[in-house]
Amino acid sequence: MLYTQIQLSLPDWVHQVVDHAALFRGDEAKVALAIELARLNVEHGSGGPFGAAVFGPDDRIVAVGVNRVVPQNTSLAHAENMAYMLAQQRLQTFRLNGALASPVTLATSAQPCCQCYGATVWAGVDRLLIGARAEDVEALTEFDEGPLPADWVGELTKRNIEVVRDLHREAACAVLAAYGQRGGSKY
Amino acid sequence: MLYTQIQLSLPDWVHQVVDHAALFRGDEAKVALAIELARLNVEHGSGGPFGAAVFGPDDRIVAVGVNRVVPQNTSLAHAENMAYMLAQQRLQTFRLNGALASPVTLATSAQPCCQCYGATVWAGVDRLLIGARAEDVEALTEFDEGPLPADWVGELTKRNIEVVRDLHREAACAVLAAYGQRGGSKY
Repeated sequence: MLYTQIQLSLPDWVHQVVDHAALFRGDEAKVALAIELARLNVEHGSGGPFGAAVFGPDDRIVAVGVNRVVPQNTSLAHAENMAYMLAQQRLQTFRLNGALASPVTLATSAQPCCQCYGATVWAGVDRLLIGARAEDVEALTEFDEGPLPADWVGELTKRNIEVVRDLHREAACAVLAAYGQRGGSKY
Repeated sequence: MLYTQIQLSLPDWVHQVVDHAALFRGDEAKVALAIELARLNVEHGSGGPFGAAVFGPDDRIVAVGVNRVVPQNTSLAHAENMAYMLAQQRLQTFRLNGALASPVTLATSAQPCCQCYGATVWAGVDRLLIGARAEDVEALTEFDEGPLPADWVGELTKRNIEVVRDLHREAACAVLAAYGQRGGSKY
Protein backbone atom coordinates (compact mmCIF):
# COMPACT_ATOMS: atom_id res chain seq x y z
CA MET A 1 0.00 0.00 0.00
CA LEU A 2 1.32 3.44 -0.89
CA TYR A 3 1.60 5.76 2.08
CA THR A 4 0.93 9.38 1.15
CA GLN A 5 -0.20 10.90 4.48
CA ILE A 6 2.07 11.85 7.37
CA GLN A 7 0.53 12.51 10.77
CA LEU A 8 2.48 13.71 13.76
CA SER A 9 1.25 15.12 17.03
CA LEU A 10 2.28 16.49 20.39
CA PRO A 11 1.19 14.68 23.54
CA ASP A 12 -2.07 15.81 25.16
CA TRP A 13 -0.37 17.19 28.27
CA VAL A 14 0.99 20.18 26.34
CA HIS A 15 -2.50 21.68 26.46
CA GLN A 16 -2.07 22.08 30.21
CA VAL A 17 1.30 23.80 29.82
CA VAL A 18 0.97 26.20 26.93
CA ASP A 19 -0.68 29.58 27.44
CA HIS A 20 -0.77 31.59 24.22
CA ALA A 21 -1.59 34.76 26.12
CA ALA A 22 1.42 34.55 28.44
CA LEU A 23 4.39 36.83 27.86
CA PHE A 24 7.92 35.39 27.81
CA ARG A 25 10.05 38.49 28.11
CA GLY A 26 13.80 38.00 27.73
CA ASP A 27 15.87 35.10 26.47
CA GLU A 28 15.98 33.22 29.79
CA ALA A 29 12.20 32.98 30.10
CA LYS A 30 11.94 31.51 26.59
CA VAL A 31 14.58 28.84 27.19
CA ALA A 32 13.07 28.06 30.60
CA LEU A 33 9.84 27.05 28.83
CA ALA A 34 11.78 24.82 26.41
CA ILE A 35 13.54 23.12 29.34
CA GLU A 36 10.22 22.66 31.20
CA LEU A 37 8.77 21.01 28.07
CA ALA A 38 11.80 18.68 27.94
CA ARG A 39 11.36 17.78 31.60
CA LEU A 40 7.65 17.11 31.24
CA ASN A 41 8.24 15.01 28.12
CA VAL A 42 10.45 12.67 30.15
CA GLU A 43 8.07 12.73 33.13
CA HIS A 44 5.13 11.71 30.91
CA GLY A 45 7.14 9.15 28.95
CA SER A 46 6.08 10.86 25.72
CA GLY A 47 9.50 11.10 24.06
CA GLY A 48 13.14 12.08 24.49
CA PRO A 49 14.44 14.81 26.84
CA PHE A 50 14.17 17.75 24.47
CA GLY A 51 11.78 20.69 24.20
CA ALA A 52 11.54 23.77 22.00
CA ALA A 53 9.25 26.72 21.38
CA VAL A 54 8.77 29.34 18.66
CA PHE A 55 8.04 32.88 19.87
CA GLY A 56 6.78 35.85 17.90
CA PRO A 57 8.11 39.40 18.16
CA ASP A 58 5.45 40.04 20.86
CA ASP A 59 7.18 37.50 23.19
CA ARG A 60 4.19 35.15 22.94
CA ILE A 61 4.22 31.46 22.00
CA VAL A 62 3.53 30.60 18.36
CA ALA A 63 4.03 26.86 18.79
CA VAL A 64 5.90 24.38 20.94
CA GLY A 65 7.57 21.04 20.25
CA VAL A 66 8.89 18.04 22.12
CA ASN A 67 10.82 15.02 20.90
CA ARG A 68 8.39 12.39 19.51
CA VAL A 69 10.84 10.09 17.67
CA VAL A 70 10.12 6.82 19.45
CA PRO A 71 6.38 7.15 20.20
CA GLN A 72 5.63 8.28 16.65
CA ASN A 73 8.24 6.24 14.79
CA THR A 74 9.69 9.25 13.02
CA SER A 75 13.37 10.20 13.13
CA LEU A 76 12.48 13.73 12.02
CA ALA A 77 10.22 14.32 15.03
CA HIS A 78 12.78 16.21 17.10
CA ALA A 79 11.52 19.01 19.35
CA GLU A 80 12.76 21.85 17.12
CA ASN A 81 11.28 20.29 13.97
CA MET A 82 7.93 19.74 15.66
CA ALA A 83 7.87 23.38 16.78
CA TYR A 84 8.79 24.64 13.29
CA MET A 85 6.17 22.54 11.53
CA LEU A 86 3.43 23.43 13.99
CA ALA A 87 4.27 27.14 13.89
CA GLN A 88 4.29 27.12 10.09
CA GLN A 89 1.03 25.21 9.84
CA ARG A 90 -0.60 27.57 12.37
CA LEU A 91 0.53 30.67 10.45
CA GLN A 92 0.13 29.03 7.04
CA THR A 93 3.61 30.00 5.91
CA PHE A 94 6.73 28.04 5.02
CA ARG A 95 8.95 30.84 6.34
CA LEU A 96 8.01 32.17 9.75
CA ASN A 97 9.56 35.62 9.44
CA GLY A 98 7.81 36.01 6.11
CA ALA A 99 4.48 36.01 7.98
CA LEU A 100 5.46 37.57 11.30
CA ALA A 101 7.53 40.68 11.95
CA SER A 102 11.09 39.97 13.09
CA PRO A 103 12.41 38.78 15.40
CA VAL A 104 10.98 35.29 15.33
CA THR A 105 12.79 33.20 17.95
CA LEU A 106 13.35 29.50 18.50
CA ALA A 107 14.24 28.54 22.05
CA THR A 108 15.52 25.02 22.53
CA SER A 109 16.54 23.07 25.60
CA ALA A 110 19.71 21.77 23.90
CA GLN A 111 21.85 22.59 20.88
CA PRO A 112 20.15 21.44 17.67
CA CYS A 113 21.55 18.24 16.16
CA CYS A 114 22.63 18.16 12.51
CA GLN A 115 19.03 17.60 11.35
CA CYS A 116 17.46 20.45 13.33
CA TYR A 117 20.42 22.66 12.52
CA GLY A 118 19.61 22.34 8.84
CA ALA A 119 15.90 22.85 9.47
CA THR A 120 16.75 26.06 11.37
CA VAL A 121 18.36 27.48 8.23
CA TRP A 122 15.06 27.30 6.29
CA ALA A 123 12.38 27.76 8.97
CA GLY A 124 12.48 31.55 9.02
CA VAL A 125 13.77 32.37 12.47
CA ASP A 126 15.93 35.36 13.39
CA ARG A 127 17.18 34.16 16.75
CA LEU A 128 18.19 30.76 18.13
CA LEU A 129 18.35 30.48 21.92
CA ILE A 130 20.04 27.37 23.33
CA GLY A 131 20.20 25.79 26.79
CA ALA A 132 22.59 22.83 26.96
CA ARG A 133 25.59 22.49 24.62
CA ALA A 134 26.15 19.56 22.26
CA GLU A 135 28.92 18.29 24.50
CA ASP A 136 26.50 18.28 27.45
CA VAL A 137 24.03 16.17 25.46
CA GLU A 138 26.73 13.69 24.47
CA ALA A 139 28.26 13.54 27.97
CA LEU A 140 25.00 13.15 29.88
CA THR A 141 23.02 10.90 27.51
CA GLU A 142 23.61 8.39 24.71
CA PHE A 143 22.43 10.85 22.04
CA ASP A 144 24.70 11.76 19.13
CA GLU A 145 24.49 15.31 17.76
CA GLY A 146 25.77 14.37 14.29
CA PRO A 147 28.05 16.21 11.86
CA LEU A 148 27.82 20.02 11.73
CA PRO A 149 29.79 22.59 9.75
CA ALA A 150 32.94 23.50 11.69
CA ASP A 151 31.73 27.08 12.14
CA TRP A 152 28.06 26.28 12.64
CA VAL A 153 27.36 29.47 14.57
CA GLY A 154 29.07 31.61 11.94
CA GLU A 155 27.09 29.95 9.14
CA LEU A 156 23.85 30.90 10.90
CA THR A 157 25.06 34.44 11.64
CA LYS A 158 25.86 34.86 7.93
CA ARG A 159 22.22 34.00 7.24
CA ASN A 160 21.02 36.60 9.77
CA ILE A 161 20.23 34.10 12.51
CA GLU A 162 21.62 35.21 15.86
CA VAL A 163 22.73 32.41 18.20
CA VAL A 164 22.68 32.80 22.00
CA ARG A 165 24.03 29.87 24.06
CA ASP A 166 24.29 28.70 27.66
CA LEU A 167 20.90 30.06 28.74
CA HIS A 168 19.90 28.14 31.89
CA ARG A 169 22.57 25.65 30.88
CA GLU A 170 22.63 23.97 34.30
CA ALA A 171 18.87 23.47 34.40
CA ALA A 172 19.00 22.07 30.86
CA CYS A 173 21.79 19.69 31.86
CA ALA A 174 19.81 18.52 34.89
CA VAL A 175 17.00 17.27 32.63
CA LEU A 176 19.50 15.47 30.39
CA ALA A 177 21.31 13.94 33.37
CA ALA A 178 18.07 12.65 34.90
CA TYR A 179 17.16 11.04 31.58
CA GLY A 180 20.62 9.57 31.11
CA GLN A 181 20.65 8.13 34.62
CA ARG A 182 17.43 6.23 34.07
CA GLY A 183 18.88 4.73 30.89
CA GLY A 184 16.49 6.38 28.46
CA SER A 185 16.49 5.52 24.77
CA LYS A 186 19.15 7.24 22.66
CA TYR A 187 16.68 8.15 19.87
CA MET B 1 -5.26 28.19 19.56
CA LEU B 2 -2.58 25.61 20.28
CA TYR B 3 -1.62 23.55 17.26
CA THR B 4 -0.65 20.02 18.17
CA GLN B 5 -1.31 18.10 14.92
CA ILE B 6 0.90 18.10 11.83
CA GLN B 7 -0.51 16.80 8.58
CA LEU B 8 1.52 16.48 5.40
CA SER B 9 0.71 14.62 2.22
CA LEU B 10 1.93 13.74 -1.23
CA PRO B 11 -0.08 14.87 -4.25
CA ASP B 12 -2.72 12.49 -5.62
CA TRP B 13 -0.85 11.89 -8.88
CA VAL B 14 1.79 9.75 -7.12
CA HIS B 15 -0.76 6.93 -6.98
CA GLN B 16 -0.50 6.68 -10.76
CA VAL B 17 3.29 6.52 -10.69
CA VAL B 18 4.23 4.25 -7.82
CA ASP B 19 4.12 0.50 -8.25
CA HIS B 20 5.12 -1.30 -5.07
CA ALA B 21 5.55 -4.56 -6.96
CA ALA B 22 8.00 -3.16 -9.53
CA LEU B 23 11.69 -3.99 -9.25
CA PHE B 24 14.27 -1.20 -9.47
CA ARG B 25 17.47 -3.14 -10.01
CA GLY B 26 20.69 -1.12 -9.91
CA ASP B 27 21.46 2.40 -8.78
CA GLU B 28 20.50 4.08 -12.06
CA ALA B 29 16.95 2.73 -12.04
CA LYS B 30 16.40 4.01 -8.51
CA VAL B 31 17.62 7.53 -9.27
CA ALA B 32 15.66 7.54 -12.53
CA LEU B 33 12.45 7.15 -10.49
CA ALA B 34 13.48 10.02 -8.19
CA ILE B 35 14.11 12.24 -11.22
CA GLU B 36 10.78 11.27 -12.79
CA LEU B 37 9.03 12.21 -9.53
CA ALA B 38 10.81 15.58 -9.61
CA ARG B 39 9.73 16.16 -13.22
CA LEU B 40 6.13 15.22 -12.52
CA ASN B 41 6.04 17.43 -9.42
CA VAL B 42 6.90 20.43 -11.58
CA GLU B 43 4.51 19.36 -14.34
CA HIS B 44 1.62 19.08 -11.87
CA GLY B 45 2.53 22.29 -10.05
CA SER B 46 2.56 20.36 -6.78
CA GLY B 47 5.90 21.59 -5.42
CA GLY B 48 9.57 22.22 -6.18
CA PRO B 49 11.71 20.23 -8.66
CA PHE B 50 12.86 17.48 -6.32
CA GLY B 51 11.95 13.82 -5.91
CA ALA B 52 13.19 10.96 -3.77
CA ALA B 53 12.41 7.33 -3.00
CA VAL B 54 13.29 4.80 -0.31
CA PHE B 55 14.01 1.26 -1.51
CA GLY B 56 14.28 -1.92 0.49
CA PRO B 57 16.94 -4.61 0.06
CA ASP B 58 14.57 -6.33 -2.41
CA ASP B 59 14.87 -3.36 -4.82
CA ARG B 60 11.22 -2.45 -4.28
CA ILE B 61 9.78 0.92 -3.28
CA VAL B 62 9.11 1.47 0.42
CA ALA B 63 7.96 5.08 0.01
CA VAL B 64 8.44 8.08 -2.26
CA GLY B 65 8.60 11.82 -1.65
CA VAL B 66 8.40 15.06 -3.56
CA ASN B 67 8.98 18.62 -2.45
CA ARG B 68 5.81 20.04 -0.82
CA VAL B 69 7.23 23.16 0.86
CA VAL B 70 5.07 25.82 -0.78
CA PRO B 71 1.76 23.95 -1.22
CA GLN B 72 1.84 22.68 2.36
CA ASN B 73 3.52 25.66 4.04
CA THR B 74 6.24 23.54 5.62
CA SER B 75 9.94 24.22 5.17
CA LEU B 76 10.71 20.66 6.29
CA ALA B 77 8.66 19.12 3.47
CA HIS B 78 11.60 18.43 1.17
CA ALA B 79 11.44 15.32 -1.01
CA GLU B 80 13.92 13.30 1.04
CA ASN B 81 12.20 14.16 4.33
CA MET B 82 8.79 13.24 2.95
CA ALA B 83 10.16 9.88 1.75
CA TYR B 84 11.82 9.18 5.13
CA MET B 85 8.72 10.03 7.15
CA LEU B 86 6.39 8.03 4.92
CA ALA B 87 8.72 5.02 4.87
CA GLN B 88 9.03 5.10 8.66
CA GLN B 89 5.30 5.48 9.21
CA ARG B 90 4.62 2.63 6.78
CA LEU B 91 7.09 0.31 8.54
CA GLN B 92 6.33 1.70 12.02
CA THR B 93 9.98 2.28 12.82
CA PHE B 94 12.07 5.37 13.49
CA ARG B 95 15.14 3.74 11.93
CA LEU B 96 14.54 2.08 8.58
CA ASN B 97 17.40 -0.39 8.70
CA GLY B 98 16.26 -1.43 12.16
CA ALA B 99 13.09 -2.84 10.57
CA LEU B 100 14.35 -3.90 7.14
CA ALA B 101 17.45 -5.89 6.27
CA SER B 102 20.28 -3.78 4.86
CA PRO B 103 20.80 -2.19 2.47
CA VAL B 104 18.05 0.40 2.71
CA THR B 105 18.60 2.99 0.00
CA LEU B 106 17.52 6.56 -0.54
CA ALA B 107 17.63 7.75 -4.13
CA THR B 108 17.29 11.48 -4.66
CA SER B 109 17.14 13.63 -7.76
CA ALA B 110 19.61 16.14 -6.30
CA GLN B 111 22.14 16.34 -3.49
CA PRO B 112 20.38 16.76 -0.14
CA CYS B 113 20.44 20.27 1.32
CA CYS B 114 21.70 20.87 4.87
CA GLN B 115 18.31 19.90 6.33
CA CYS B 116 17.90 16.62 4.44
CA TYR B 117 21.57 15.85 4.95
CA GLY B 118 21.01 15.87 8.70
CA ALA B 119 17.82 13.85 8.38
CA THR B 120 19.77 11.26 6.36
CA VAL B 121 22.08 10.69 9.32
CA TRP B 122 19.18 9.52 11.53
CA ALA B 123 16.73 7.93 9.08
CA GLY B 124 18.39 4.52 8.95
CA VAL B 125 19.61 4.24 5.38
CA ASP B 126 22.72 2.41 4.23
CA ARG B 127 23.08 3.97 0.80
CA LEU B 128 22.46 7.46 -0.60
CA LEU B 129 22.17 7.71 -4.39
CA ILE B 130 22.28 11.21 -5.88
CA GLY B 131 21.47 12.65 -9.32
CA ALA B 132 22.41 16.34 -9.62
CA ARG B 133 25.16 17.92 -7.54
CA ALA B 134 24.64 20.87 -5.17
CA GLU B 135 26.43 23.14 -7.62
CA ASP B 136 23.99 22.08 -10.34
CA VAL B 137 21.04 23.01 -8.13
CA GLU B 138 22.53 26.40 -7.32
CA ALA B 139 23.58 27.12 -10.93
CA LEU B 140 20.30 26.08 -12.55
CA THR B 141 17.76 27.34 -9.99
CA GLU B 142 17.49 29.93 -7.20
CA PHE B 143 17.68 27.23 -4.50
CA ASP B 144 20.35 27.42 -1.80
CA GLU B 145 21.75 24.14 -0.46
CA GLY B 146 22.81 25.60 2.88
CA PRO B 147 25.84 24.92 5.09
CA LEU B 148 27.24 21.36 5.17
CA PRO B 149 30.26 19.86 6.93
CA ALA B 150 33.33 20.33 4.70
CA ASP B 151 33.69 16.57 4.28
CA TRP B 152 29.98 15.76 4.11
CA VAL B 153 30.53 12.52 2.19
CA GLY B 154 33.18 11.33 4.63
CA GLU B 155 30.92 12.07 7.61
CA LEU B 156 28.24 9.83 6.11
CA THR B 157 30.76 7.12 5.21
CA LYS B 158 31.97 7.13 8.83
CA ARG B 159 28.37 6.41 9.83
CA ASN B 160 28.16 3.49 7.39
CA ILE B 161 26.17 5.37 4.76
CA GLU B 162 27.61 4.88 1.29
CA VAL B 163 27.24 7.85 -1.09
CA VAL B 164 27.05 7.41 -4.88
CA ARG B 165 26.87 10.58 -6.98
CA ASP B 166 26.30 11.69 -10.56
CA LEU B 167 23.73 9.02 -11.37
CA HIS B 168 21.74 10.29 -14.39
CA ARG B 169 23.22 13.69 -13.56
CA GLU B 170 22.28 15.17 -16.94
CA ALA B 171 18.68 14.07 -16.72
CA ALA B 172 18.49 15.45 -13.19
CA CYS B 173 19.94 18.75 -14.37
CA ALA B 174 17.42 18.94 -17.21
CA VAL B 175 14.53 18.95 -14.70
CA LEU B 176 16.24 21.67 -12.65
CA ALA B 177 17.00 23.75 -15.73
CA ALA B 178 13.39 23.55 -16.96
CA TYR B 179 12.17 24.69 -13.55
CA GLY B 180 14.75 27.48 -13.35
CA GLN B 181 13.88 28.75 -16.81
CA ARG B 182 10.23 29.15 -15.96
CA GLY B 183 11.18 31.18 -12.90
CA GLY B 184 9.91 28.72 -10.29
CA SER B 185 9.86 29.58 -6.60
CA LYS B 186 13.14 29.13 -4.77
CA TYR B 187 11.51 27.35 -1.80
